[in-house]
Amino acid sequence: MNGLLTDLYELTMAAGYFAAGKHEETATFELSIRRLPRNRDFVIAAGLHRAIEYLENLRFTANEIAYLRGLPSLKNASQGFWDYLAAFRFTGDVFAVPEGTVLYEGQPVMNVRAPIIEGQIPETYLLAAIGYETLVATKAARIVHAAAGRDIVEFGTRRAHTPEAGVLGARAAYIGGCAGTSNTLAGYRYGIPVLGTAAHSWVMAFASESDAFERLQRLLGSRTVHLIDTYDTLEGARNAARLGRPLWGVRIDSGDLAQLSREVRKILDAAGLTDAKIMVSGDLDESKIEALVAAGAPIDAFGVGTELTTSADAPSIGAVYKVVAIGNIGNVRYPVKSSPEKHTIPGAKQLFRLPDHDVLGLSTECITGSEALLQPVILGGRVLQDLPDANQIRVRADAALREWPKATRRTVLSPKLKALNDSVRGVYVHTEHAQPAVTI
Amino acid sequence: MNGLLTDLYELTMAAGYFAAGKHEETATFELSIRRLPRNRDFVIAAGLHRAIEYLENLRFTANEIAYLRGLPSLKNASQGFWDYLAAFRFTGDVFAVPEGTVLYEGQPVMNVRAPIIEGQIPETYLLAAIGYETLVATKAARIVHAAAGRDIVEFGTRRAHTPEAGVLGARAAYIGGCAGTSNTLAGYRYGIPVLGTAAHSWVMAFASESDAFERLQRLLGSRTVHLIDTYDTLEGARNAARLGRPLWGVRIDSGDLAQLSREVRKILDAAGLTDAKIMVSGDLDESKIEALVAAGAPIDAFGVGTELTTSADAPSIGAVYKVVAIGNIGNVRYPVKSSPEKHTIPGAKQLFRLPDHDVLGLSTECITGSEALLQPVILGGRVLQDLPDANQIRVRADAALREWPKATRRTVLSPKLKALNDSVRGVYVHTEHAQPAVTI
Repeated sequence: MNGLLTDLYELTMAAGYFAAGKHEETATFELSIRRLPRNRDFVIAAGLHRAIEYLENLRFTANEIAYLRGLPSLKNASQGFWDYLAAFRFTGDVFAVPEGTVLYEGQPVMNVRAPIIEGQIPETYLLAAIGYETLVATKAARIVHAAAGRDIVEFGTRRAHTPEAGVLGARAAYIGGCAGTSNTLAGYRYGIPVLGTAAHSWVMAFASESDAFERLQRLLGSRTVHLIDTYDTLEGARNAARLGRPLWGVRIDSGDLAQLSREVRKILDAAGLTDAKIMVSGDLDESKIEALVAAGAPIDAFGVGTELTTSADAPSIGAVYKVVAIGNIGNVRYPVKSSPEKHTIPGAKQLFRLPDHDVLGLSTECITGSEALLQPVILGGRVLQDLPDANQIRVRADAALREWPKATRRTVLSPKLKALNDSVRGVYVHTEHAQPAVTI
Repeated sequence: MNGLLTDLYELTMAAGYFAAGKHEETATFELSIRRLPRNRDFVIAAGLHRAIEYLENLRFTANEIAYLRGLPSLKNASQGFWDYLAAFRFTGDVFAVPEGTVLYEGQPVMNVRAPIIEGQIPETYLLAAIGYETLVATKAARIVHAAAGRDIVEFGTRRAHTPEAGVLGARAAYIGGCAGTSNTLAGYRYGIPVLGTAAHSWVMAFASESDAFERLQRLLGSRTVHLIDTYDTLEGARNAARLGRPLWGVRIDSGDLAQLSREVRKILDAAGLTDAKIMVSGDLDESKIEALVAAGAPIDAFGVGTELTTSADAPSIGAVYKVVAIGNIGNVRYPVKSSPEKHTIPGAKQLFRLPDHDVLGLSTECITGSEALLQPVILGGRVLQDLPDANQIRVRADAALREWPKATRRTVLSPKLKALNDSVRGVYVHTEHAQPAVTI
């Protein structure tokens, strides 16, 4: 189950490690934010729940193994390897930053310490699961910030990269500060507030707009939101005003939102509906929302879809999953990939958060007065405890984001990590293509 | 099952339609490409297989219904509605263009004709399922075109918006012309060629690069691809050349790919390995590939990940799902949403492909010498026949793309559709907020 949801090269390497007798050698892999997404000063880590669920359930079924045996790339794999895959379980340790944590460029999200094959196979899944939710939580935080206290409702499932991604995008958007989502399954599964009333097709299905509005009101009562731009927005506002309470408010989904919201506000106020709210939607992102807020448009809530759920201005994150230490206790080596633009800092690390800066140190260090962000979540293949739910994670992210913005925060290497890094680079420089190695 | 994977407003509207007695009224919904993705002149339709699987299996479990009953927005829904949902099945008709079809702006992908609730609920899922695969198939076609005959291998699962999206992205990329994917599950599930050899971590796990290369060669034989840029690309090429055959070739994942590929080519040729191939990868897209091809870089294959799997320059598609006809035979009405920038053409349509242009007509029309692209796939809730597999779809797309580029292709309305459109617009103009309606 899930065993094939990985890049083939993870499995050819697994077969190769097995052939080389390396399957009992321990390695530490680090998933880190090598490059921030475009336009971002930080990210909000998210997606850990799926990483853990995956590692707990990672298996290869008999049918999957039969498929792999038929692949030309694996025709030289031994029977021992197939037996190994059939019995495969993740037995390693995982340390990760809690979801909702703010991270900066170069910082680790997760360490996986396991027999090398068990650490290698999950690379593809972990990067995608953590990468996507992290992207959306981060985008949501930016959009929520731009709205300066007004609610953001996430509407984006229809533009998600598959419907199922929409469910996870909804969760991540909520973690990043959205008030709720339109995605019903996300509400069911993650306990997130779900919101939604009616689309244009509702208005178009009845003989008149007023008829459609009246029937919606009968169903939804004080939760009614009339979508007023199907035919003519101001006429729609007048139809809504005429019906009066019970009413949450109206939504405008097209046109000049600043101007229309002002005119609609006047229509509602003139009808005595000063408590009726105005929600707007339609291709919104943080810069459009910031402009509407700055213009003083009388908008109470924003519905945001495409731009949020696809993180459209930065639809990927430069996360990487690199081996940072290999070997069992007493014989640990520190491989480093030293291509010009892609240097890896070796060693199993800990990220220490201090009031005004972060320290990246060795996992064995302890820095007084800091919060050690990489916390154990799986030890010896066993999940340690229940994870926080989406609401608790959202509180953590909210607390971390109060001091926004934080573009200038520094990350420094601890003296011990710096010494390790320098020594490994030194070894590399002198040995050319031989593998750099330091034994501790 | 799957019933909750939709926007809540689809379900509040369902409850409202039920309350209004409209659940036995038929409606036709049209999923169309209102706006092409940025930088695109056409799209390759894909994702239909999931739309059909979803409609076949669309159900609401008892637990899901219990959850919905607890939502404040649905507290006024009747017991009759809950009974209706418990027995819910999709019983309608679906006409769709075959996957692998080239479509232009404004063209329909799918018609769903069903009792209005059955047509409304699937909106969210259908848009996301078809939207994502269509985006990736289209991006793949552009990248494959840029490579001018060289192979493109899709590598992007780690950057997909969830690991599962990577599986569907791999399928779509293959439909768009890629030679294969790194995604093993996509190979297993869809019969797509899977490719992959080793990562940097492989090279770093052994005492020297040569040792790593030798062990890979022992496993993969003539399929061996040495990744030569872990330490120093040219030294890596020399190490690969020294080992000689069996060998497919080498891969370069960083640095100046044009220059490095030339130097690596010389090293391989000097060792007599003139048949060894060079693959390159690393943040590639169609413009970078076009530049490498134009520069005459001796590259045989490209690995493309992030840009392809996220359709990074255009990560969403302006597809819409609109009601275009309501009512049972003898009393069909044509609603149109007439907001200034978002006009909907009414009526259940057919798309006719002629040699030099397309005609959008009524579904009841027949145009001699044309291919009617919207074909029945579900009638009365029953799937008509086995769908083509990924390989067959890829052949269809490939045939359609032979005449690339097609930016200038015209779509015209048939006289009958034009007359309907004009008459409905006319009705709208004169009746203000009353619903425009034409009865046939």
